[in-house]
Amino acid sequence: MSPRCWINGVEQLDITVADRGLQYGDGLFETLAVFDGQCPRFQDHYQRLRAGCDRLGIPLPDETLLLQEVAQAAKGQDKAVIKLILTSGVGGRGYTRPVNPQVTRIVMLHAWPDYPLAYWQNGIAMMLCQTRLGCNPALAGIKHLNRLEQVLARNEWQGNDYAEGLMCDTDGNVIEGTMSNVYLVRDNTLYTPTTDHSGVAGVMRHWILDNAPKLNIDIVETAISVEDIKQADEVILSNSLIGLWPVKAFETCEFQPGPVYWALLKHLLKDYPVVDV
Amino acid sequence: MSPRCWINGVEQLDITVADRGLQYGDGLFETLAVFDGQCPRFQDHYQRLRAGCDRLGIPLPDETLLLQEVAQAAKGQDKAVIKLILTSGVGGRGYTRPVNPQVTRIVMLHAWPDYPLAYWQNGIAMMLCQTRLGCNPALAGIKHLNRLEQVLARNEWQGNDYAEGLMCDTDGNVIEGTMSNVYLVRDNTLYTPTTDHSGVAGVMRHWILDNAPKLNIDIVETAISVEDIKQADEVILSNSLIGLWPVKAFETCEFQPGPVYWALLKHLLKDYPVVDV
Repeated sequence: MSPRCWINGVEQLDITVADRGLQYGDGLFETLAVFDGQCPRFQDHYQRLRAGCDRLGIPLPDETLLLQEVAQAAKGQDKAVIKLILTSGVGGRGYTRPVNPQVTRIVMLHAWPDYPLAYWQNGIAMMLCQTRLGCNPALAGIKHLNRLEQVLARNEWQGNDYAEGLMCDTDGNVIEGTMSNVYLVRDNTLYTPTTDHSGVAGVMRHWILDNAPKLNIDIVETAISVEDIKQADEVILSNSLIGLWPVKAFETCEFQPGPVYWALLKHLLKDYPVVDV
Repeated sequence: MSPRCWINGVEQLDITVADRGLQYGDGLFETLAVFDGQCPRFQDHYQRLRAGCDRLGIPLPDETLLLQEVAQAAKGQDKAVIKLILTSGVGGRGYTRPVNPQVTRIVMLHAWPDYPLAYWQNGIAMMLCQTRLGCNPALAGIKHLNRLEQVLARNEWQGNDYAEGLMCDTDGNVIEGTMSNVYLVRDNTLYTPTTDHSGVAGVMRHWILDNAPKLNIDIVETAISVEDIKQADEVILSNSLIGLWPVKAFETCEFQPGPVYWALLKHLLKDYPVVDV
């Protein structure tokens, strides 16, 4: 499927070069799963957009309007991906925003990614990226358009030997995968890096923080080292399209999809059918 | 003057939303001064693009081709600005670049900025921005498209009370202005922050590093604190459009345009007429 795109509600594939999304990465994005013509986690994505707009100081578009534009793109799609971008709109040269920025809304419809079933059943191989994440509380946690660090990290490998790369911050703390959040399990407790100085606070991460306790799994946000990952009972990744993946190989270590992974995945799949395992 | 724009040599104002410049800020830019139909520092900007393309791992367009496209935009312009953007081109969803990225070349022609003559004669007022710059050697020095930190800093003030804002990194070291490099003078020596962990290595900064010694002014790249700025004999800013500005006010401190500023400015203006002072 060729991607389709709506800009401010009008279907078109082009955008003005003067948009500040292109000029400065002055904006935010969300990646939403479409199942059976619906976006089941729209509210969660909208809440993260709210936090992002607050942080960047750009106006948040009306929820009903955005939902309508997303629904229009999702209509008739059995399984698909919507990438929703908000930018601070069209501006002149220079970093100063217009006095009343008119946010640009971009809704892109993409094909569902074709990951092998084995990724969920047996796990994925994860590499350790050399590219580090900078630390800046002003930008941490939100899903903004300044993604060069992820681009550089993701382009450290080609081919299918690895399905994801693990990124550390400039201090050497584990933060996230290039496109996913990361968790380790020790003694039936989940640990995941904090996102207050670096990284993205994923919508699926939010779901896990909410739902792990309901399954009697404790979850702790904390500092995590590469060594901690290596010594884990289980290593798990999450994002809105994969749901959850277990890691089967990292550096010289091997892992199995474990009970915490399976409990979370089965709970997720009740109303979020990323995969049929 | 309304901006004009050429994309890959063709005059047009629109670009595909699938361009990775918009999707991820995966690219670089340069801001060039046009005087009398010419871009006198094209080579210096091209050298920085070369360094940026190397760092980001994207192909560097041919120099003759770029020069030709810049010259086409500059033709007939008495005094103008060219913003030249290179992106990693059109791609699919996800951080992985196409195997053979086709770089997008964007040449935008803008009006010359209308700064008051007094900025060069008496100096400018500079505020201290709260927004910090993250540190990441992988991205430091080059002029990439991930500019949210500068956008947030520049939007800390409105109006003309300040002409520039000073930015520190997350450790509190002075790095640069939102759109300029910064220098202090003590005992006839220039000091400017290093750009190896944060900040942009400006083309005008490069000129100053080259030319200060020719004027018997020592110049040192080093760590600089806000307190160092306050205790300076002179404080100077530079970029490709302002050339040089002296700072007259910062926090509670006042400065005068001093002998180092005037020597550099007069030397610059011999073949780079940003202003008629």
